[in-house]
Amino acid sequence: MQLGLVGLGRMGGNMRGRLRAAGHEVIGYDRNPEVSDVESLAGLIERLASPRVVWVMVPAGVTDATIDELSGLLSEGDLIIDGGNSRFSDDAPRAERLGKVGIGYMDVGVSGGVWGLENGYALMVGGDAEHVARLAPIFEALKPEGQFGFVHAGPVGAGHYAKMVHNGIEYGLMHAYAEGYELLTKSEIITDVPGVIKSWREGSVVESWLLDLLDRALDADPELAALSGYTEDTGEGRWTVEEAIRLAVPMNVIAASLFARFVSRQDDSPAMKAVSALRQQFGGHAVRKSS
Amino acid sequence: MQLGLVGLGRMGGNMRGRLRAAGHEVIGYDRNPEVSDVESLAGLIERLASPRVVWVMVPAGVTDATIDELSGLLSEGDLIIDGGNSRFSDDAPRAERLGKVGIGYMDVGVSGGVWGLENGYALMVGGDAEHVARLAPIFEALKPEGQFGFVHAGPVGAGHYAKMVHNGIEYGLMHAYAEGYELLTKSEIITDVPGVIKSWREGSVVESWLLDLLDRALDADPELAALSGYTEDTGEGRWTVEEAIRLAVPMNVIAASLFARFVSRQDDSPAMKAVSALRQQFGGHAVRKSS
Repeated sequence: MQLGLVGLGRMGGNMRGRLRAAGHEVIGYDRNPEVSDVESLAGLIERLASPRVVWVMVPAGVTDATIDELSGLLSEGDLIIDGGNSRFSDDAPRAERLGKVGIGYMDVGVSGGVWGLENGYALMVGGDAEHVARLAPIFEALKPEGQFGFVHAGPVGAGHYAKMVHNGIEYGLMHAYAEGYELLTKSEIITDVPGVIKSWREGSVVESWLLDLLDRALDADPELAALSGYTEDTGEGRWTVEEAIRLAVPMNVIAASLFARFVSRQDDSPAMKAVSALRQQFGGHAVRKSS
Repeated sequence: MQLGLVGLGRMGGNMRGRLRAAGHEVIGYDRNPEVSDVESLAGLIERLASPRVVWVMVPAGVTDATIDELSGLLSEGDLIIDGGNSRFSDDAPRAERLGKVGIGYMDVGVSGGVWGLENGYALMVGGDAEHVARLAPIFEALKPEGQFGFVHAGPVGAGHYAKMVHNGIEYGLMHAYAEGYELLTKSEIITDVPGVIKSWREGSVVESWLLDLLDRALDADPELAALSGYTEDTGEGRWTVEEAIRLAVPMNVIAASLFARFVSRQDDSPAMKAVSALRQQFGGHAVRKSS
């Protein structure tokens, strides 16, 4: 089928490739003319036959502006899909705004990263059943072969919600491996740390794709010497913990992995300065002065 | 090659099957005569040709007693392997005791659970290179096919150490999935929780064998209604956190997952009673009385 695709970065660009390989007609627009098929968003809409379907795959910060601009260009019966990492709570208001002018909306959480072009993308979909049915050929082409990698998770917002939880889990998984890795490196008895990680890749209870990636990283750089431990976050971990707080779900592991990222960005921690101050005050303990 | 195997439970019994299928001569002893090949440990030793190799696969609590008994039956040049979940710190003292009477010792962490018979076991080995070489045919038969699933991690103790860290990571991984699962079940927007879990099994960043097992469990019981949340632990998680404390490794995620198991066993928590008491004392907050 024919699909307009807005945003041709690492994710969108590869998705265009996978969809075209499956025989779909994808017309892509990106602000970068080197990768774009058309000169403008308006030009993209002109190229699409009604009723149009436009998949938005842009960074979270510009999604609403993109959807608003599309809303002015599209017509009743058209359909917008947001496949980016929007906060789930943005979805229902968008669907309502677009619904008032007869434009459909659905949200899709897309996982798979840069490996998706080859392996397919896990798709978590939120929206009306009729919209899901309309996009079925596109979902079929994007998802991995086999029975997994797709769910209609619920109404509008459920796709991004499922993807948010997926990413929160990802934080916790990464951190569990990371803590184990650090303990192995500190132990006096383990003489082959990368070898231990590699041994777990098959036959062990902790085998996973993330473990495979850690092994790849250690193959290239056995002590991760080229990397710093400063780690960013892109929102989904925060939103997951915010939801856990709203719904009173104990989430010690995922919260701890999120907070560890915050710690990693601190040159010196006001909290730990306060601990130093209190140790000095009540116990006269020797503390380290600011340098 | 010929191997004596002591302990034919869920792990040892399946290992005997996998080794025999690979053409090795395994003589197994278990206290349960229904599964044992010989009547006694002494009978097992009589059946083995010198120099003998005996693999011990018994519950952690009886490993030292078993090894001490074997020590009295074996001769110089024989070799004992402990493949159970011993604490790594037990290994060096055992190796020293056995070394005094000329018996070799090595430790192997074995992962794979009840699936190992078919898929092979991930093996983490600690000991001297000559002992590792002597057991190579056995390791080759037990491990999964392919390049993964085996490491000589270091000297005596390193196999159990690597397995301990593996199990600590396992606690964290399980808990990250578990927290995400609970949030999905509490969310008002997700209409297909098992479907979301299933969708992650391929193409997603969180795909893993543990996730496959969670999906299997939800296939059989979509709300896990038949299970209680009371969870035991068998030691490796505690040892991992003890090592993190000894080596000053921040281990918030794995410690939190261990502590969550402790919480799961409490009908009512003295700590939370203390929180209730303090809320009542300073704030006059309404608190719930003991029933």
